[in-house]
Amino acid sequence: MPRLAPLSGFPEWSPSQRIVEAQLIASLREVFALHGFAEIDTRAVEPVARLAGDSDAAKEIYTLARLRGVDKAGGEREEASLGLHFDLTVPFARYVEERQGELDFPFRRYQVQKVWRGERPQDGRYREFYQADIDIVGRDQLPAHAESEVAIVMAKALAALTASVGAPQARMRCNDRRLVEGFYAGVGISDVASALRAVDKLPKIGADAVKRELGTLEVPAQAADAVVALAGIAAQGAALGDAARSAWHVHGAHGEQARELFDSGLVALMSLVDAVNAELPGTATGDLSIARGLDYYTGAVYETVLEGHEDLGSICSGGRYDSLVAGGGFPGVGMSIGVSRLVSRLLTTGTASASRSVPSAVLVAVVDEHTRAASNLVANALRVRGIPCEVAPTAAKFGKQIQFADRRGIPFVWFPGELGDQVKDIRSGEQVDADAAVWMPPAADLWPTVVRG
Amino acid sequence: MPRLAPLSGFPEWSPSQRIVEAQLIASLREVFALHGFAEIDTRAVEPVARLAGDSDAAKEIYTLARLRGVDKAGGEREEASLGLHFDLTVPFARYVEERQGELDFPFRRYQVQKVWRGERPQDGRYREFYQADIDIVGRDQLPAHAESEVAIVMAKALAALTASVGAPQARMRCNDRRLVEGFYAGVGISDVASALRAVDKLPKIGADAVKRELGTLEVPAQAADAVVALAGIAAQGAALGDAARSAWHVHGAHGEQARELFDSGLVALMSLVDAVNAELPGTATGDLSIARGLDYYTGAVYETVLEGHEDLGSICSGGRYDSLVAGGGFPGVGMSIGVSRLVSRLLTTGTASASRSVPSAVLVAVVDEHTRAASNLVANALRVRGIPCEVAPTAAKFGKQIQFADRRGIPFVWFPGELGDQVKDIRSGEQVDADAAVWMPPAADLWPTVVRG
Repeated sequence: MPRLAPLSGFPEWSPSQRIVEAQLIASLREVFALHGFAEIDTRAVEPVARLAGDSDAAKEIYTLARLRGVDKAGGEREEASLGLHFDLTVPFARYVEERQGELDFPFRRYQVQKVWRGERPQDGRYREFYQADIDIVGRDQLPAHAESEVAIVMAKALAALTASVGAPQARMRCNDRRLVEGFYAGVGISDVASALRAVDKLPKIGADAVKRELGTLEVPAQAADAVVALAGIAAQGAALGDAARSAWHVHGAHGEQARELFDSGLVALMSLVDAVNAELPGTATGDLSIARGLDYYTGAVYETVLEGHEDLGSICSGGRYDSLVAGGGFPGVGMSIGVSRLVSRLLTTGTASASRSVPSAVLVAVVDEHTRAASNLVANALRVRGIPCEVAPTAAKFGKQIQFADRRGIPFVWFPGELGDQVKDIRSGEQVDADAAVWMPPAADLWPTVVRG
Repeated sequence: MPRLAPLSGFPEWSPSQRIVEAQLIASLREVFALHGFAEIDTRAVEPVARLAGDSDAAKEIYTLARLRGVDKAGGEREEASLGLHFDLTVPFARYVEERQGELDFPFRRYQVQKVWRGERPQDGRYREFYQADIDIVGRDQLPAHAESEVAIVMAKALAALTASVGAPQARMRCNDRRLVEGFYAGVGISDVASALRAVDKLPKIGADAVKRELGTLEVPAQAADAVVALAGIAAQGAALGDAARSAWHVHGAHGEQARELFDSGLVALMSLVDAVNAELPGTATGDLSIARGLDYYTGAVYETVLEGHEDLGSICSGGRYDSLVAGGGFPGVGMSIGVSRLVSRLLTTGTASASRSVPSAVLVAVVDEHTRAASNLVANALRVRGIPCEVAPTAAKFGKQIQFADRRGIPFVWFPGELGDQVKDIRSGEQVDADAAVWMPPAADLWPTVVRG
């Protein structure tokens, strides 16, 4: 047998930690469903040719092989070409393409599943982790308001986590590809993608280094100053529009086409930021430094950080794209939460923990093995009324049975008695007469809850 | 891009089919949790050395490799030795071994996850599928009543599926290793495992062929008659004990040790069958033909078939084992439901289908794009009261918007109006004045339900 040390990059939680993760996922699912998103669940594998289309991800793909014993009917060939999905977008795109004749568009879907990436594990970066995605995809067109809608649903889903599992407040930073591309064109930069890769390093290497790198790309110093200045803008409401338009003028951007593109992006971005903040005040900022994903996204682009945990990077990102599938058509907008990264941070910082390690609100004590059936009856009477409980495994002394409950955080111990039952709150020690057909624990004790801090 | 045909053995469902699967899983989880089982979620991969311990399964293991780009730090070596789990027992055993110092025993856990097996796909046999397992594991000992408890919880979980998703009634067939081993020893069979493999073929090849095969194993004809006769016993209550004891005598079984083993198994089996039937009358039968798993299990062994779907084979199996881990200790008992096999049968036979394809109970119509904000307000007022809804994607003619709802099975369309709102039940055509702050759909329409037949 191999060593038992945990595998780096493959997180697993204790039973009580899993309660936090499960409640977080349940909370997300509820918000998505309340907003009319339908769930899909896709297979874990895709043809490697489909996965490897994105060259950055290709080196992280886990491919499958059979240990031994291969189908006669060419099974090996088929399986040798399969890999584990590294995100939920590739399988979603394939699902939509495969079922385009039967799905109704715009198609609003959510998906919460594990994904696998063979990257070097580090804090908050895993090889196996849960993602939670929402997307709205049209067949041939998708109204602009979908860009606000997806951001609002995700902002609400994250806000709900603050209530359900004590997650820190989320701050959404938004940008728009058209705004950036229009501005870059306006100041005379033609290779927008390369320039964006340089600007993307701004938080890490600082403005001077970015300008030097832009210089190596033959971006004129004036234009480099301009795009670094643009990236310095982070604002909401009218201030966002003022700052962006001022940057256009101050840096001498020009050109009718460029200006039109810039304006269309700015109007869309302001509308997006306003729409999110109208529902969740102060949540969204127009942050013109966001460059990640602008090579792929064609409109809105989103990143989300948790207050006080900015070092974790974005825990929820996405954007608007022209076509979900390679053949064109199917424009959409989507965002993805890195669930495991978020859960891990909540757990390891002690921000969230479960009130107990088992579902049971009640341990039904066993007086002696001959009366175990009576204890089972009590447990069943509680369960039919929705009260999770378990029966003591042995007829140990009551002190031992109370210890059994205490170690697991079970708040109540039930004592069946010939002359009537009693139930004890083992936290307060209070013990009262009780009838299994009517007694209810306080609502807060019924199921395990997630405790903050 | 590779062809888009679905991959054989990797089932995926439409959004409305996924509703059935998700409700089935939610129903199982609820029953498990009500009985105090704690959920764990393990990583999808295990070291191959650990997976391949079971020689039968080894040829079905999917191993992982990286497409390209390997860690300098020996990443390749580590990953080359990983495979996808083919059941939830191997990871559970490793989890318990790894965390034995922090878990509380007896440890009651449930687990609902996908597993992967590279076997030839056929009806009800998949390469990727969901399993739902429960186990109770002790540290050094486990009381016998755990064998009844696991069977009862699974029987209740399956009975709940009849209510929640219209699953056919489950019939549990139980046997006991000690009974069989004692009987076989009593009639003079020493190689019990080989004899059991022959008897396991009884339903497929018939009694005569089994006896011939036993003959090749040098089992005397009398003993072969005896074990085939034993395998013919299927009964409940006192009849089970009568039939088994009668077989002992009629076939001249003898030997004190053998008899003790036989009796201990029979008493345990009768107690198990009675306990299940006391809670769910008629559900369990003592079926002495069950031979599968008796090489591994040491006490109770269970199989479960769905009424009218016996051809599907067992959809929920398990048993009692002496030690979960290789090193000894950790006796336990567990059962596993083949969730995907069950879901597939419900869906493909039309036994269960969802009442709609989206969560939304209400489509909020949009009068024109300038008043979309008013429609959003209605939707939010409904959502805060727990009513799932979505807002129409475009301000199309109302007829079109009603069609949009109808295609998805959304029962209600909401029309915001300057002088007051109205809501239409598009099934009956009834349209009434409504206030988004107080209106509620009938409870049966709030969330998608699973419709039978």
